[in-house]
Amino acid sequence: MLNERNWIVTEKHFDLKRQNHAETIFTIGNGYLGTRGAHEERYPGEERTTFIHGVFDDVPIVFTELVNAPDWLDLTLLLGGELFSLSEGEILTYQRQLDLRNGLLTRSVEWRSPRGVRWQLTFERFASLANPHLLCQRVRATAFENVTLEVRSTLSGETDNLNYKHWDWLGQGFQRNSAWLHLRTRSSGIELGVAARLSVNGGGNLQQTGWDTRNAPTLVTTTEMKSGEAVEIEKITAFYTSRETNDPQGAVRRALETLPKRAWEGLWESHARAWQREWEACDVLIEGDDHAHLAVRFSLFQLLAAAPRQDERVSIGAKALSGYGYRGHVFWDTEIFMLPFFTYTRPEVARNLLSYRYHTLEGARKKARENGYKGAQFAWESASTGEEVTPTWVPHPTDRTKLIRIWTGDIQIHISADVCYAIWQYWQATGDDDFMIHRGAEIFLEVARFWASRAEWNAENGSYEFTDVIGPDEYHDHVDNNAYTNALARWQLLTALKVLAWLEGRNPDKAAELRRLLELDENELNRWREIGEKIYWKQDAASGLIEQFEGYFQRRQIDLRSLEPRMQSIQSLLGIEGANDANILKQPDVVMLAYVLPELFDENSLRANYEYYNARTDHTFGSSLGPAIHAIIACRIGKPDEAYEHFMRAALADLEDVRGNAHDGIHAASAGGIWQAVVFGFGGLRFDPEGPKPFPGLPRHWKRLVFRIKYRGQFYEYDLRNSPAGGDEG
Amino acid sequence: MLNERNWIVTEKHFDLKRQNHAETIFTIGNGYLGTRGAHEERYPGEERTTFIHGVFDDVPIVFTELVNAPDWLDLTLLLGGELFSLSEGEILTYQRQLDLRNGLLTRSVEWRSPRGVRWQLTFERFASLANPHLLCQRVRATAFENVTLEVRSTLSGETDNLNYKHWDWLGQGFQRNSAWLHLRTRSSGIELGVAARLSVNGGGNLQQTGWDTRNAPTLVTTTEMKSGEAVEIEKITAFYTSRETNDPQGAVRRALETLPKRAWEGLWESHARAWQREWEACDVLIEGDDHAHLAVRFSLFQLLAAAPRQDERVSIGAKALSGYGYRGHVFWDTEIFMLPFFTYTRPEVARNLLSYRYHTLEGARKKARENGYKGAQFAWESASTGEEVTPTWVPHPTDRTKLIRIWTGDIQIHISADVCYAIWQYWQATGDDDFMIHRGAEIFLEVARFWASRAEWNAENGSYEFTDVIGPDEYHDHVDNNAYTNALARWQLLTALKVLAWLEGRNPDKAAELRRLLELDENELNRWREIGEKIYWKQDAASGLIEQFEGYFQRRQIDLRSLEPRMQSIQSLLGIEGANDANILKQPDVVMLAYVLPELFDENSLRANYEYYNARTDHTFGSSLGPAIHAIIACRIGKPDEAYEHFMRAALADLEDVRGNAHDGIHAASAGGIWQAVVFGFGGLRFDPEGPKPFPGLPRHWKRLVFRIKYRGQFYEYDLRNSPAGGDEG
Repeated sequence: MLNERNWIVTEKHFDLKRQNHAETIFTIGNGYLGTRGAHEERYPGEERTTFIHGVFDDVPIVFTELVNAPDWLDLTLLLGGELFSLSEGEILTYQRQLDLRNGLLTRSVEWRSPRGVRWQLTFERFASLANPHLLCQRVRATAFENVTLEVRSTLSGETDNLNYKHWDWLGQGFQRNSAWLHLRTRSSGIELGVAARLSVNGGGNLQQTGWDTRNAPTLVTTTEMKSGEAVEIEKITAFYTSRETNDPQGAVRRALETLPKRAWEGLWESHARAWQREWEACDVLIEGDDHAHLAVRFSLFQLLAAAPRQDERVSIGAKALSGYGYRGHVFWDTEIFMLPFFTYTRPEVARNLLSYRYHTLEGARKKARENGYKGAQFAWESASTGEEVTPTWVPHPTDRTKLIRIWTGDIQIHISADVCYAIWQYWQATGDDDFMIHRGAEIFLEVARFWASRAEWNAENGSYEFTDVIGPDEYHDHVDNNAYTNALARWQLLTALKVLAWLEGRNPDKAAELRRLLELDENELNRWREIGEKIYWKQDAASGLIEQFEGYFQRRQIDLRSLEPRMQSIQSLLGIEGANDANILKQPDVVMLAYVLPELFDENSLRANYEYYNARTDHTFGSSLGPAIHAIIACRIGKPDEAYEHFMRAALADLEDVRGNAHDGIHAASAGGIWQAVVFGFGGLRFDPEGPKPFPGLPRHWKRLVFRIKYRGQFYEYDLRNSPAGGDEG
Repeated sequence: MLNERNWIVTEKHFDLKRQNHAETIFTIGNGYLGTRGAHEERYPGEERTTFIHGVFDDVPIVFTELVNAPDWLDLTLLLGGELFSLSEGEILTYQRQLDLRNGLLTRSVEWRSPRGVRWQLTFERFASLANPHLLCQRVRATAFENVTLEVRSTLSGETDNLNYKHWDWLGQGFQRNSAWLHLRTRSSGIELGVAARLSVNGGGNLQQTGWDTRNAPTLVTTTEMKSGEAVEIEKITAFYTSRETNDPQGAVRRALETLPKRAWEGLWESHARAWQREWEACDVLIEGDDHAHLAVRFSLFQLLAAAPRQDERVSIGAKALSGYGYRGHVFWDTEIFMLPFFTYTRPEVARNLLSYRYHTLEGARKKARENGYKGAQFAWESASTGEEVTPTWVPHPTDRTKLIRIWTGDIQIHISADVCYAIWQYWQATGDDDFMIHRGAEIFLEVARFWASRAEWNAENGSYEFTDVIGPDEYHDHVDNNAYTNALARWQLLTALKVLAWLEGRNPDKAAELRRLLELDENELNRWREIGEKIYWKQDAASGLIEQFEGYFQRRQIDLRSLEPRMQSIQSLLGIEGANDANILKQPDVVMLAYVLPELFDENSLRANYEYYNARTDHTFGSSLGPAIHAIIACRIGKPDEAYEHFMRAALADLEDVRGNAHDGIHAASAGGIWQAVVFGFGGLRFDPEGPKPFPGLPRHWKRLVFRIKYRGQFYEYDLRNSPAGGDEG
């Protein structure tokens, strides 16, 4: 790791009003599961969730959602007969810290009970990265009177997702000082085993018992404490599901049986080592800006905590595993925003994430078929099968007899190209031909086929068009010839032909197999080229401006400055229709395009489009995906300080809740965008035939920027110092 | 009670495949709550519900639903360490019986455990009618070995409604051998207290303990049984909600504290006496047809079990308190189908049910206002406030991206007249002027005002019309001038004027108050008369036929016989649009009208309309409301045996599940219709100025029919014998 500073996220006060935001911030995870930072004891309004990758179940309206697993945090402390709760008694000192180096969450409290007993309590937890099926908790308690300590730990199968229950009970039991519970999701039939072991060390006259309450087996231990004596409670929980084993409840029991009597230390060591390896591959150092430095590391921590290392049939949802937002559904956020971080630092994870798209190709084929197209049309929102799970209708926020139609699942089609873009980028960065041969190529061909079937010939202007789409900018739906969509479609169609040509040379058998399997003939390939080359594309020769979609320039012009100060999005202010009619953007598709396909822009047009769209974008309450990209392009046109403003808007989305919605879960796309802004924006990294090369342009107050990447099997570290001129136009 | 036979509903086999149907059949209740006949021990696929009148909470799609209360049935028996479950071991004998005289549900089982221990077990339960906050259970257990018996009883706050949770935990605790739990509904904020006391009598070395598991306090008792020794388990549960008291959890604790050590016998006596009084007012005797006799009593039992005796702010939903069907929502089913039974046997209950409409008048005013009308438009589906809670959209059964628009909440407007009709009938039958003065009149005036604002003048044919409505026959929506709706609107407008005129004489102050409150002037009253007298009405002079709605005669003619044998509804066969285009009816509005307003029909037109529409009605899988009404009209035209066929179709809807949907809950409207078919159909009861008079026409094989009613404060009993001619045309 690059230095010792800026690793700790701290909460200094217990504040129930912002508990849901804090739960998001203090989410920990190990790529198998993620758990929000709820407290061991319960408080009204809390959202205590544990989401396990791939454990989806049916639900009305949003079709499917990650299921809230049994709560492994639960610890009820009866201190001298009084229930420990910070809502009662008096808090003398309070501090909670998340150590980003290793995901250790620690809470230290001095508390005076309602009856006046003073207690010192330290709670610790981590989700083992070395063995992701194990979750560890430790509590150290000291009382300043002679009292009885009673500790209860319940495994409850009654957890719900915002009132909705997903679990059926199958069985439960006890063995020695552990309890186990066996459950199954109600629709998807995924079985889950969970077991917990509770040990109390210290005190006297230790008594252990188990309450065999149905669907809530409970371990209870009491001990007699002397004044000033420290007692240590250790709880180890194990999870397995039928996604990993045929016998999840046997697996969790065995996982606990093999542990030593006191397990924390051993588990901690392997866990901390595993995290250290992660950071060695990807840590970033920023000198001169502790605030930004911590925020960057927080973003990377959250991405690492959600990264599936053992599973290539899952991907990272828009809120990772950290909250109910978007219900665990996977968007283009993963491929375009999060994936580059993994591709360039942890390519094994990137491969898993891209393999998810391969395994869900059948769902994408189904979607294309059902919409009357050919090939594969990836779901705008994807879950376990790749079928479209975007809600089609959602309740109106105020009029309960009305519904709002959500169109993204129907016509936000750019995602199919985005998936291919990420595959291409991964392949370029890693040289993983095996992936391209056995998985990537098939995706490329099927997506090209989709684009060809979706394109419409317009004889009048002699071009192929994509009408009735939504671009990344979701304020404007049902538009024609969205610049981002059209450019990506063109890129995808022509690149698919390149991929096939490469495959013919590299692995002719596989190429032949795909041609046979997909019934591809020369006519169709020629048609892809014909369409790709003639996709509608328009750019003002003089200004270099690209119109975001046909007719955008004619939308009602609104001066954003006239609406300041503003505490809600433009869509909230103007309504869905009002925002659609206006020229303000949720995020600017042309700026996005300039990042994704820079070869389409020369220096002038890059600057012109940035300036034009930057002034017309709802940066503060529009899409959280935009600011990091703005930061990158601002760097490229030599405005690192303006870039910094965009960058910090992204970097603080979660830690300081600048958008007001961090309680729903972290902004995982923004987190990925932050890494890209550091590396490709301020670091100015580019890939030439000779390899990667930085063209740094640091914000004025940054003294130093260090980051690491892996490119074609080689590690690179860049140690960049500020050049007073700022900006580094390439 | 009129005889000793035909009181017992028996189940002879344990069959998990039909457990949900059996749960409906074995529902017990006491007018405060209703509990489905789930077993004490749990089985997969069970629907164990307890619904308490008026305890509604918000839920997506259907807006609000009766909340499944904590399960009071729960008893886990560990017999010599083996869990008692009929899915394991061997069932030697099995019988379950519901005694309709008193709602005692008894299950007797001889069971051999997997380890070979033979057990004799008898389970009994009743929901006290004398003190409806108390629920009683008793188990007698005998083992034919020396073994330990462990009994566990959990009060769980985790119950859900078809996966959806409504309860928040507030507190729990123990006192002596009872446990209590304090909960609150998540949206509506209704608090609930529940407490249970567990006593075990017999055996030796009795040990009692409590498991304080969060949201699931559990009582545990063990005893050592000798071979052949009988042990008796008694469990008494108490429920109170914040709808009855400010301190529901205190109330339940006090309710148990005041009970004697062994409470069953005392509670049983007062309970059985209360039921006896109920039956003395309403029992029916049928000689010569045990099958029909039991079915009639079953229907009356279910109505009595759901009848609110202490609460005038609730009504009986379409499935009473016996299942999830229609989520406890209240329809016209109550006023037109169930209410006559109460009006003529238990007028106090009828008054409560009608008072519910008075208390929800504000919701009906709101609905009228929001739809652009005046006065009061009663909700098609009504819950706690009277606001419309019909789902506007429901998910498509097969295509999950589609929704189906439900129009009944918008345009099935006849219900507002039906409510008034039931008030009028109640007033005529009881002479309860007080109700009419203080509640009924205001409803009448507000509903008349609604009709007047809804009517449209058609200059072409010189009549007022009601266009774009749904009549009782829901296969046909968006129709104009539905015969039932128009006739009831006319009746309502003109009767409202009569009610006001009567009130001016009977209580001029109240009349003046209402005129002032509602800002009624002579112009408006004149307009009501004008509209009422000129509502569109058409009848073929030659045939006497009335067209169900404009254009009905032109709908596609389908011969129902050509579709036999048929195991689904016409709407399922033809689809929503297909059924709308065809002439087959879910239920015949004109026949319904002939029952409700017989004065509109002479003998010929009665016969003509019955024969015409009878042949075009989906009797088997259309509306369950139709058959009883068909039976009545068939009696009136002298066809008691044809009437009997319709009658039994209604009578067996639940007991023999002839429609295949009894698992959703009982057909409460049909149950009420059955009573009407007996009294007004076969009994031919009519009300002349001199009083009620029967014109019997019994089915051929009925030897004797006896029934009782109360009319204007007097009790009448009719003892009718079959006249061999059958039929008794009046």
